[in-house]
Amino acid sequence: MENLTHKILKAHIIRGEMIPGEPIEIRIDQTLTQDATGTMAYMQFEAMGLPSVKTELSVSYVDHNTLQSGYMNADDHAYLQSVASKYGIVFSKPGNGICHQVHLERFAKPGKTLIGSDSHTPTSSAMGCLAIGAGGLDVAKAMAGYPYRLTMPKVVEVRLIGSLRHGVSSKDIILELLRRLSVKGGVGKVFEYTGDALKTLSVYQRATITNMGAELGATTSIFPSDEKTKEFLEKQGRPEDYRPLQADPQASYDETIEIDLSQLKPMAACPNSPDAVRPITELAGIKVDQVAIGSCTNSGYEDLMKAAMILKGKKVSPHVSLIISPGSRQVLLKLIQSGALQIFIQAGARILECTCGPCIGMGQSPKTEGVSIRTFNRNFYGRSGTLSAKVYLTSPEVAAASAVSGVFTDPSMIAYEDDFAPEPQIIDDGMILYPSRDPDSVEIIRGPNIKPIPQNTAMPSSLSKKVVIKLGDNITTDHIAPAGAEVLPYRSNIEKLSTFVFKNNKPDFYDICQNNHGGIIVAGENYGQGSSREHAALAPMYLGIKAVLCKSFARIHKANLINFGILPLIFENPEDYDKIQEMDTLQLSDLKNLYTQRSLEIYDQTSGQKIRCRVECTDADLDLIMAGGALNYIRQNAS
Amino acid sequence: MENLTHKILKAHIIRGEMIPGEPIEIRIDQTLTQDATGTMAYMQFEAMGLPSVKTELSVSYVDHNTLQSGYMNADDHAYLQSVASKYGIVFSKPGNGICHQVHLERFAKPGKTLIGSDSHTPTSSAMGCLAIGAGGLDVAKAMAGYPYRLTMPKVVEVRLIGSLRHGVSSKDIILELLRRLSVKGGVGKVFEYTGDALKTLSVYQRATITNMGAELGATTSIFPSDEKTKEFLEKQGRPEDYRPLQADPQASYDETIEIDLSQLKPMAACPNSPDAVRPITELAGIKVDQVAIGSCTNSGYEDLMKAAMILKGKKVSPHVSLIISPGSRQVLLKLIQSGALQIFIQAGARILECTCGPCIGMGQSPKTEGVSIRTFNRNFYGRSGTLSAKVYLTSPEVAAASAVSGVFTDPSMIAYEDDFAPEPQIIDDGMILYPSRDPDSVEIIRGPNIKPIPQNTAMPSSLSKKVVIKLGDNITTDHIAPAGAEVLPYRSNIEKLSTFVFKNNKPDFYDICQNNHGGIIVAGENYGQGSSREHAALAPMYLGIKAVLCKSFARIHKANLINFGILPLIFENPEDYDKIQEMDTLQLSDLKNLYTQRSLEIYDQTSGQKIRCRVECTDADLDLIMAGGALNYIRQNAS
Repeated sequence: MENLTHKILKAHIIRGEMIPGEPIEIRIDQTLTQDATGTMAYMQFEAMGLPSVKTELSVSYVDHNTLQSGYMNADDHAYLQSVASKYGIVFSKPGNGICHQVHLERFAKPGKTLIGSDSHTPTSSAMGCLAIGAGGLDVAKAMAGYPYRLTMPKVVEVRLIGSLRHGVSSKDIILELLRRLSVKGGVGKVFEYTGDALKTLSVYQRATITNMGAELGATTSIFPSDEKTKEFLEKQGRPEDYRPLQADPQASYDETIEIDLSQLKPMAACPNSPDAVRPITELAGIKVDQVAIGSCTNSGYEDLMKAAMILKGKKVSPHVSLIISPGSRQVLLKLIQSGALQIFIQAGARILECTCGPCIGMGQSPKTEGVSIRTFNRNFYGRSGTLSAKVYLTSPEVAAASAVSGVFTDPSMIAYEDDFAPEPQIIDDGMILYPSRDPDSVEIIRGPNIKPIPQNTAMPSSLSKKVVIKLGDNITTDHIAPAGAEVLPYRSNIEKLSTFVFKNNKPDFYDICQNNHGGIIVAGENYGQGSSREHAALAPMYLGIKAVLCKSFARIHKANLINFGILPLIFENPEDYDKIQEMDTLQLSDLKNLYTQRSLEIYDQTSGQKIRCRVECTDADLDLIMAGGALNYIRQNAS
Repeated sequence: MENLTHKILKAHIIRGEMIPGEPIEIRIDQTLTQDATGTMAYMQFEAMGLPSVKTELSVSYVDHNTLQSGYMNADDHAYLQSVASKYGIVFSKPGNGICHQVHLERFAKPGKTLIGSDSHTPTSSAMGCLAIGAGGLDVAKAMAGYPYRLTMPKVVEVRLIGSLRHGVSSKDIILELLRRLSVKGGVGKVFEYTGDALKTLSVYQRATITNMGAELGATTSIFPSDEKTKEFLEKQGRPEDYRPLQADPQASYDETIEIDLSQLKPMAACPNSPDAVRPITELAGIKVDQVAIGSCTNSGYEDLMKAAMILKGKKVSPHVSLIISPGSRQVLLKLIQSGALQIFIQAGARILECTCGPCIGMGQSPKTEGVSIRTFNRNFYGRSGTLSAKVYLTSPEVAAASAVSGVFTDPSMIAYEDDFAPEPQIIDDGMILYPSRDPDSVEIIRGPNIKPIPQNTAMPSSLSKKVVIKLGDNITTDHIAPAGAEVLPYRSNIEKLSTFVFKNNKPDFYDICQNNHGGIIVAGENYGQGSSREHAALAPMYLGIKAVLCKSFARIHKANLINFGILPLIFENPEDYDKIQEMDTLQLSDLKNLYTQRSLEIYDQTSGQKIRCRVECTDADLDLIMAGGALNYIRQNAS
């Protein structure tokens, strides 16, 4: 009596046992990258020296760095296009859409495994594909045919019963889970959705849930492939990709959660965390300055149609700036055909390109202390580009209703049509380029912003380093290596990027690392949550960070630290966190012994105290760390 | 037998005689501002202490700083919206369109005078309105009811005969004039269009010509108000604004130029000047990386429809990024209704917001050494945001044809339909906000990026300053105070903006000025051409620049220098330019004598040479300079 997650894992497992907490290795069918993590991933793939990718399908998307304020973005795009053409990778041109939206529409398949160098890769799991976010180097290795290593997750059944009421959205389902479980509630888990309510939820609605499941810290979230999937794939002109796939009746799960959809209300994640969830009724009346509808969470046809039904014949409040970013050009064409684009424009919306845009702080930063309602998945401090802004995450229905009234408005309290024009069947892959048939003739275009990947040195047997920063709980990769219009253009230039590490927490972090020849980071729970960007390991590595000591790690970031040769240490006794002060000197000795004992006694030279910590790594992980990262390891073992 | 220019001037003149070269003062009916020059203009208006504007109509547009990378842009927008509401100014919300396109559609009227704090304000002269670009302070003064001072221009008749052939555009008419006359060929002149060919040119086609007439250095360019104007205004739902207005038969002109439209070919302005014009046939085959269609020059309904006719059923070349920025949301709605937007998307175009966008380096910077074809009006060095890019200015037809083929392509050599769907009648002013009926209740919103205007000190009677930079001919205001995504957000913060002055010519200019307590700028011909931005005077003023000595000035920039108390000096003998070296110390004595003799002998203390120069200023101009600028002057004379 197997659950769906186990079925797909079993069909792809290469090594290890499917026991929660054990390391396993699985075969990867598909990969995806976006441009902000992709340049680095493809440079790593190039370094592996293969003539072409070994996956069934690898797609390179451009959706992050599309403002192009300076030559850097366009140089990156040209590099990505040329690499894709040469190495057998499909390329989605800038303007074609957000990676997750396009991948769901055009490429994801039930039963396949997909890893992507973006934490919202689980979006494609809405159709029974096992899609997982990973660091760029893991994606590069998958393209080179290496299996993907992960810790066997627990599988949590999320049983959905009842049906959503007027004004309540599938966004509210994932907000409810975040409210109950918090941003670290999903670490080491896959959320598998079951229950009678599934037959009421379209693939678009499911995709919102699997997308934002990333905010739970989950390995992934997954829906079965059923009649709704069939319908979706038929609309996409690819019925042949459909196969029914679901858990056995009475399948067993490690845990079960039940949500009665009929009990849900419209909600918002309040500043500055996706789990600070409150009902809209409690926020009613707060004045709104900006409303942004789009992002990989809520920019599909159905999401935007729901907003259009509310905006139809209405005008946006004079003091609100309403922004619409369709998820893909397919969506944009459908909005034109259905009349929704005209509704948006006539309501006074600003129509942006089909990209990530404001979700990653790539433009549309709110005004000072501005209140912004966004249909996005993250509202981390500073991510909008305006440190003092107050960003709330909601459904498209809440966003549209509030744009009209100018204050937080509960859409379940207002009248509007729930039905909208059926989805037009429009398919146009004209901005998807297939690889060259003559790869030898393709020259890689490498503009001046694309710098070689910096190299790490091997881990010494013992080291003594200062605590260059001490942080609290739930530090995100946005804190470590910020996104936004100022920083993102340097994703291919680690030397420059490293000057921005922790810029909103400790503006002189770069100088401190330079003056102390690197150091050690100390933090609380769930260190490295959020985006999958390996730059949050790579830039600290460049600055000489040798270890991170914290109460717990987020999954992808821990894998990235290992990949780049940084030691992930966990307090054996969480209260010891209080014993360490910033700028204390920590001594780590006999690191080679980690292979046998997986624990370490750290000596705080400043306070004279001893602190015990665990190292939750496999032998293979330790091999990478001791070599100074996976690229060193591969290089040494290739010769 | 009066020409049209004289007729309008005569109806508005307050002081002076209509003799070319003489100072005159005229009454201003309408003003416009955009956000990058507007914040400063409105702060200046606020400083004048009036309860509301005294013009018939003043409109505040937001079209430049719309990427919003950081809080600064949104803060500016909030300031502009609140100031407009309080002081009786119409506000066009961000997303509503480019100022010149919207003003032409909704507000410009035959026979009226309009000044705008943007050099392309003459766009509205396409319908027999006398529209002139000016510095922000001049616009502020006009809003306060002061007359506008200018030098009575010569009026040049441009007689258009014949008709444009297939593939040739009205853009080629203005490119032909630039080819013949150069970027300084229009200084001190108004270009008044006449001839049989007028009846073949729509208001949109005329607007392209009057818009880009700014590149000639002209005071303005003007077309009569005739049947085409009537048709245009009827389509805009404002037939009551029409009045026929044209030159008398056999009107006299200071000069006459004739252009036979049937002889024109498709052309391009080559890097890096709008007058470096060559036929497309000479460029055929050059590979193109980017094509951008839009900007205030070519983003009206007809411009985009022409591009659509060429792109219909075609795909953009794989290596080309095609960008479309419609001029206004009215245009965008029309493109949807006519089917053109679908054509663009299906061809693989990226659709941007209805703003200035890439024309001012606000995004879409080309890749390193990228070749970019743009339907814009300026291709100054660095303006695209990529110093090494090669930017060409063409018609929408050349742009579209080249986007498909991937190389420079002459549209007259390819077949496509010349006719397109008639313009749908769509009018929607929903993003245009009218001022508050209760101005006292409106609070001005002043975010932290909005800094007070810096104050200048009175001009000393004698001074001795170093030549902090020596420049060549045709220096643009883009050289002096660059546009682009990095710099434009600081247009309300002169202290910060001043660190970017001459950043692409002399990166240490700021430090040199600081170390030498300001200085003097030396340059060649046509100093200060291009954009009207008064920041190109205000930021040097902040850095302590006391005088600019050159061979000749561009009109608006000279007025801006005077407004901010910087002395504009002209070499009496242009060869003396060679006598002065950078970092020479120049001594200027007895400046009070300028009121009587309008000339000056400068002593170069470094070389020991004497240099004579002229000061082409009125007494009123000298009053402003001696006071340290118009704001000081107004302040002193108000008490």
